[in-house]
Amino acid sequence: MTKPATVANKQRELKKKFIHHVYFWLKNKGNAADKAKLIEGLRKLSVVKTIQQFNIGMPADTNRGVIDSSYSISWMLIFKNGKDQASYQTDPIHLKFVEECSHLWTKVIVYDNVDV
Amino acid sequence: MTKPATVANKQRELKKKFIHHVYFWLKNKGNAADKAKLIEGLRKLSVVKTIQQFNIGMPADTNRGVIDSSYSISWMLIFKNGKDQASYQTDPIHLKFVEECSHLWTKVIVYDNVDV
Repeated sequence: MTKPATVANKQRELKKKFIHHVYFWLKNKGNAADKAKLIEGLRKLSVVKTIQQFNIGMPADTNRGVIDSSYSISWMLIFKNGKDQASYQTDPIHLKFVEECSHLWTKVIVYDNVDV
Repeated sequence: MTKPATVANKQRELKKKFIHHVYFWLKNKGNAADKAKLIEGLRKLSVVKTIQQFNIGMPADTNRGVIDSSYSISWMLIFKNGKDQASYQTDPIHLKFVEECSHLWTKVIVYDNVDV
């Protein structure tokens, strides 16, 4: 970071954003090909115009009692606001992703959050 | 965003980061004073040096079946790497936060993720 790590600067990029964090549990958890297919699908999905920032992740190697590391893939999106997130849900690119990839997972949890 | 919304730019800020996303369920869910205390505690906690970015959130008004909006407060942190996240866990400011605020919540789920 080039900017000083003040509280205001740490908060700046994420302030007033809509954070959409999805966790996927793959049907065939140990299957590398299925994991790669889901990641490829998410990369294609990331072109949706309303997505300002995204991250495709997997569980870190941390293991305290409160940590859930049972998911396979994490998909975090930053939107400008709730309206942009709503339009993402019905974007043809998103619908195509669901059509092509939803057979890969057995469970999904989504947490949507806005600033307090 | 001043930069063009290319896939590379959308990914840039979060690439190779360690994302630590915590969801808190308050013991007294409807209690505004308890909620304010937790938020104030998190604001104080945000000064920990290894935290590069943070967001204090609450559930958005979305309500599809896959969305968990039962939590009270979301606390998302961006660290440079796992080493910085580990040092945050034992930072005196963090330990003080746990001491002062842990009576407020009944449940916590943490998801730690790194790039695929």
